[in-house]
Amino acid sequence: MTWVYAVDLIGTSVFAISGVLTAMQKKFDLIGTLVIGFVTAIGGGTLRDMMIGRTPVGWLTDRNYIIVIVAAYVIAYVFRERILVLRKGLFLFDTIGIGLFTVLGIQVSLSKGLLPEVCLMMGVISACFGGVIRDVLTNVVPLIFRKEIYATACILGGIVYLLGSILTPYDTISTIAAMATVMIIRLLAVKYHWTLGGE
Amino acid sequence: MTWVYAVDLIGTSVFAISGVLTAMQKKFDLIGTLVIGFVTAIGGGTLRDMMIGRTPVGWLTDRNYIIVIVAAYVIAYVFRERILVLRKGLFLFDTIGIGLFTVLGIQVSLSKGLLPEVCLMMGVISACFGGVIRDVLTNVVPLIFRKEIYATACILGGIVYLLGSILTPYDTISTIAAMATVMIIRLLAVKYHWTLGGE
Amino acid sequence: MTWVYAVDLIGTSVFAISGVLTAMQKKFDLIGTLVIGFVTAIGGGTLRDMMIGRTPVGWLTDRNYIIVIVAAYVIAYVFRERILVLRKGLFLFDTIGIGLFTVLGIQVSLSKGLLPEVCLMMGVISACFGGVIRDVLTNVVPLIFRKEIYATACILGGIVYLLGSILTPYDTISTIAAMATVMIIRLLAVKYHWTLGGE
Repeated sequence: MTWVYAVDLIGTSVFAISGVLTAMQKKFDLIGTLVIGFVTAIGGGTLRDMMIGRTPVGWLTDRNYIIVIVAAYVIAYVFRERILVLRKGLFLFDTIGIGLFTVLGIQVSLSKGLLPEVCLMMGVISACFGGVIRDVLTNVVPLIFRKEIYATACILGGIVYLLGSILTPYDTISTIAAMATVMIIRLLAVKYHWTLGGE
Repeated sequence: MTWVYAVDLIGTSVFAISGVLTAMQKKFDLIGTLVIGFVTAIGGGTLRDMMIGRTPVGWLTDRNYIIVIVAAYVIAYVFRERILVLRKGLFLFDTIGIGLFTVLGIQVSLSKGLLPEVCLMMGVISACFGGVIRDVLTNVVPLIFRKEIYATACILGGIVYLLGSILTPYDTISTIAAMATVMIIRLLAVKYHWTLGGE
Repeated sequence: MTWVYAVDLIGTSVFAISGVLTAMQKKFDLIGTLVIGFVTAIGGGTLRDMMIGRTPVGWLTDRNYIIVIVAAYVIAYVFRERILVLRKGLFLFDTIGIGLFTVLGIQVSLSKGLLPEVCLMMGVISACFGGVIRDVLTNVVPLIFRKEIYATACILGGIVYLLGSILTPYDTISTIAAMATVMIIRLLAVKYHWTLGGE
């Protein structure tokens, strides 16, 4: 198992926990929280795969994604009393996750021979649209449209990855540079309350 | 025409009527109710087919689905005065429908060589996500996430079908056992007000 | 560049402006308005392409769509002070756009060998579902379901196109007749406040 695959699975589980916690706060039942956990974790990649014609969509052919999501679901229920602590602890992993999801989304799209700007968009969709679908299903205006620097961090990280893949033959370097970009921007944005003008 | 195909068409029309009735109560116009009728009837199967790469999605190549949905739409308008009676009368057919949709969704996915747990999920999506998309389009939190045993019945019925397809070579037996499971659980759930803890 | 392609790009940009203006009124941030602009412009065609298995979906392989959408986004911000004037001026182009999108959606679907009634539905989805997805993402009940003659105009225009393609070998004539139908119905509907009974 490569480190990329390991981080992918960890990111997937963190997204799932975040979805389950959100659904719990909305008083969803056991099935509702499970569905929202899945949607949050794999919604972005699913939409990307359906759009670029990579079907069956990726996670359908790899049992490990299902296992980590179900495990995350159980963990979220077991530790539900410490939900606030959990959320803070997850923030770092979540940020690592969106960085990697952006890169993986770009890689998959590049392998389909798509335009670089399209690959960038597919990377952002991979990282952000699980949350968008979660918000649509729980009937709130998607958070990332209002006052989050979330998507912006993914866009800039994605650009770093695309530039890196032109400038260097070492894909790992580009990947790490992109993930670092996403993480730094998001951490700074949270620390200094950066927004893009929404309300 | 096999009995499975007949039940599939009946289930589709019942789902369509349920969608049209919901849209009427929301004061949608003639087109709005038609769209919601279609979405409720074929939304789940459409999402499943797009995810597993079975395109054009199934109902696009079979005129009969369109005919029964349009017929259901007309029936819903003709009998709109007796809307409450209609809803009760439809409950049984609706329950038969979700049982069969679950089984058909699993069969289609198995034929694509997908993992059993993925096939189970695709079965549940086939049966339940038409209603989810209907609820999203009418701007309410999807009902099945809150206090319905609906999806649970499909999951258990789907497991029965998968076990049956391993244990017996007679697909009809597995199908009927699965449908019976879905029906019994749902009827008992409604009778005894079973829920899974949502609000 | 054919006139059809030119009108397609113009229609795309007008849809994008309409989406950006809607998102601005909802106080979305810079990324949120961009996403809604894209979704409004290409959402209908994207859904159609995913349903009929035309992947990667059309606009992913043609940079020009992305260019006109980003240009529209910039224009919407530059002229945001004159938003009401802009909306009125856009109405005509918007109506031309939905007429052409309906025809193009039908053409793409016919080329896949789909049933005529399915092609008609795909035409309507192409023209109308970008707006539906925009409304879902901004958490309002889709406008076209309530009191708009919008979809009806597309349906009638689509029928004119399908009849034209049987009756005459000149595709341009059918296209123009269909677009004229959509425009006339919509203009009359707005002028005389036609509705289909919703509220």
